[in-house]
Amino acid sequence: MIETGAKEKLIQVVGRENYDDTQAGRLVYSYDASPQFQVMPDAVVAPRNKAEVQAVVKLCNEYRIPVVPRGSGSNLCAGTCPVEGGIVLLFKHMNRILEIDEENLTVTVEPGVITLDMIKAVEAKGLFYPPDPSSMKISTIGGNINENSGGLRGLKYGVTRDYVLALEAVLANGEVIRTGGKLAKDVAGYDLTRLLVGSEGTLAVITEATLKLVPMPEAKKTMLALYQDIEACAQTVSDIIANRIIPATLEFLDQPTLQAVEAFAHIGLPTNVKAVLLIEQDGPQEVVERDIEKIADICRKQHAVDVKVAASPEHAEALMTARRSALSALARLKPTTILEDATVPRSEVAKMVVAINEIAEKYGLHIGTFGHAGDGNLHPTCLADIRDQDEMERVEKAFAEIFQKAIELGGTITGEHGVGMAKAPYLEWKLGKPGISVMNAIKNALDPNHILNPGKVFAKETDRVVMEK
Amino acid sequence: MIETGAKEKLIQVVGRENYDDTQAGRLVYSYDASPQFQVMPDAVVAPRNKAEVQAVVKLCNEYRIPVVPRGSGSNLCAGTCPVEGGIVLLFKHMNRILEIDEENLTVTVEPGVITLDMIKAVEAKGLFYPPDPSSMKISTIGGNINENSGGLRGLKYGVTRDYVLALEAVLANGEVIRTGGKLAKDVAGYDLTRLLVGSEGTLAVITEATLKLVPMPEAKKTMLALYQDIEACAQTVSDIIANRIIPATLEFLDQPTLQAVEAFAHIGLPTNVKAVLLIEQDGPQEVVERDIEKIADICRKQHAVDVKVAASPEHAEALMTARRSALSALARLKPTTILEDATVPRSEVAKMVVAINEIAEKYGLHIGTFGHAGDGNLHPTCLADIRDQDEMERVEKAFAEIFQKAIELGGTITGEHGVGMAKAPYLEWKLGKPGISVMNAIKNALDPNHILNPGKVFAKETDRVVMEK
Repeated sequence: MIETGAKEKLIQVVGRENYDDTQAGRLVYSYDASPQFQVMPDAVVAPRNKAEVQAVVKLCNEYRIPVVPRGSGSNLCAGTCPVEGGIVLLFKHMNRILEIDEENLTVTVEPGVITLDMIKAVEAKGLFYPPDPSSMKISTIGGNINENSGGLRGLKYGVTRDYVLALEAVLANGEVIRTGGKLAKDVAGYDLTRLLVGSEGTLAVITEATLKLVPMPEAKKTMLALYQDIEACAQTVSDIIANRIIPATLEFLDQPTLQAVEAFAHIGLPTNVKAVLLIEQDGPQEVVERDIEKIADICRKQHAVDVKVAASPEHAEALMTARRSALSALARLKPTTILEDATVPRSEVAKMVVAINEIAEKYGLHIGTFGHAGDGNLHPTCLADIRDQDEMERVEKAFAEIFQKAIELGGTITGEHGVGMAKAPYLEWKLGKPGISVMNAIKNALDPNHILNPGKVFAKETDRVVMEK
Repeated sequence: MIETGAKEKLIQVVGRENYDDTQAGRLVYSYDASPQFQVMPDAVVAPRNKAEVQAVVKLCNEYRIPVVPRGSGSNLCAGTCPVEGGIVLLFKHMNRILEIDEENLTVTVEPGVITLDMIKAVEAKGLFYPPDPSSMKISTIGGNINENSGGLRGLKYGVTRDYVLALEAVLANGEVIRTGGKLAKDVAGYDLTRLLVGSEGTLAVITEATLKLVPMPEAKKTMLALYQDIEACAQTVSDIIANRIIPATLEFLDQPTLQAVEAFAHIGLPTNVKAVLLIEQDGPQEVVERDIEKIADICRKQHAVDVKVAASPEHAEALMTARRSALSALARLKPTTILEDATVPRSEVAKMVVAINEIAEKYGLHIGTFGHAGDGNLHPTCLADIRDQDEMERVEKAFAEIFQKAIELGGTITGEHGVGMAKAPYLEWKLGKPGISVMNAIKNALDPNHILNPGKVFAKETDRVVMEK
């Protein structure tokens, strides 16, 4: 509940039409794309520019009102669920592409711009922004930066972090910092740019970003390799890299995922095989041709039952789009879809896939797995029903074991989805107590009143799940 | 002066042979590669392993003894000058390459390994570590990480930060944190890895690092383009990028630098032209050939008086080595060589070069300029004599103006050399008061007793140089 004084001041800043504390308005922003988490905010506030963001944050700091910055809420870690109430800070008005600089190969945007809109705008100029989270049709750049989003091209091109050159951000006290610049090299002080990237709105509120672009690859080619043996499929991933080829995309889909995607997208995906690799290479024409040929050979050597190169750019695009729809496709099957992203070193993908299947069997669950095999970022996905309490408890136990296994294999509890509320209880497994202490010290230093997205990243009850040794 | 109790405990940890507080021993570590800065440490301590580093740092924290971690001291920002005394922490025993992982394309090292030794070791396996600071023959990986070193390949490949996947580091309180992993994607918490990269030993002491490798490029080719017009030369840099070509190396050398380098290296560099671009492209054979041809055309269109492609790999290597020797070559000419690295967006290189020349003239100084034109990272170099006080004052004023101009053009006060003591007074120009406050808050949070490399990054007297508006 926001006290009347604060409410009036907030309305003065953003205008009455941009302050919504109706039941209906609040309900819409009480959850995000992550199942199982819902808490009502006290109000939804949509500033129109940086100055308004500053004023809002400053007021919230004075009145100790939680601030939850939110783009499209497409995150999968309950990162934008307003768990401690307060205001949801919406960026719907701050969605302009401010500049595409063709000399310095940069694009400068407000946080609310939709990822795909920006990608299309730069591609129209022959430039390329590689990070491509599957949610890019609806996600915002601000959200991508706060979550350090990955995507299908992470193996070759890296993730959002690798493309953020400069940020403007409002601190908890309302002051503005500007980090970085249109600079390939800048070592003036600590790397605040990358400290903010992936900080999930807990350290500052981003109001502007300058992103790095690269020249658009000349050509690309897409292929499918079909397997009846999951381990051979995973081994192919290692073999491709061992042959010193880094494809743009190297995706893994198991049979349950293939069946769900095909039923959803109807593009002729094989559904009678145990697993498929979806591989894309881009670059100069001759290099793409050569790499795709070499990759096809490697797949055949690992007993792929078939290797199919997409016949046309349209077919290739359809395959990639189908892959991006995997979550939507799976989500249709059961009321509750729990998608995780345990990540392991590439060399451990085969072991991890086997372990996931064993854990699913142990708990009597249906867990399909797809994901970015090339970078070890797997998405084990459990189809369940939130009304079935016993099943949900088994799901929680199974995922805890999956995280534990990922860490045992040198991996992490989250490759690209973020910690948010969903994975906060497991973070200590990855970072240890000293790591959590360092993060806590940084959080306290930058946001002493804990108004910025409270209840995220740091677990309230670290003993909720005790890691079994 | 280290009190006897602390001294005895330190000796217990590292052994008497690894604790040196003789006058001669301390003198060697009283300065680094940066001119104008010299302060005696109280002792030089060389731990043999992580456990010893932990114990030493813990003791220093208890006794409030400054700890200055040091690799080879090749930095150019007085980053390892022990300005507040205390101990210099040497990594000469911790110089092993622990693992080259060909499946995950990583190398894991102790901080004291020499950069070039590691590069050679991975190249022997067909792998490539792109960051190539000019000091790589003597610099250590630990130093590179602490300074976030750049190099000649920054334009295409990025800098040290882009290759650090995981760190092990000892905190000021002696606890150990492990960040990241052999993972292309990892969003489990704040990006502590990159917070430590470039933090100049002020936040933690790095004891191990896992670095990303890429496949060795198939081929490379090197060329020189000669100019009588500096602006045309700088314009060529923009034109190459505007043509969507990203060369591996795109270096600029002006006439004074050319003359000095040729007198030093005798490899037939032209000395009768105003400026030269040294350009290297790597990648698949056919792409390299095509790019080099296109680049040569672009150079000719910008009135290059000559374009020469290196006849053999040996000649190409000689050219690159000569470029890397620029600082040594210039340093022979006068007693004091002050090398800066003001950096601007690539589109502003021409303006910056002109401004540097004007500022040199205004203050009656000889400032040659060379550097990484492709990424806007210029090295204006002033040849002076530290015994000439009047001249040194003019040098200081001139460089202050150069930094000011760089910032005015959207640049930074340091692209790859770091802040250290040398640039601390100027840091606020780049970051503003709120930026400095955030950094200070982080420093206080992680190192509350200020024992880690004190006197660096943060200016003691922020008003030493007042920025003229």
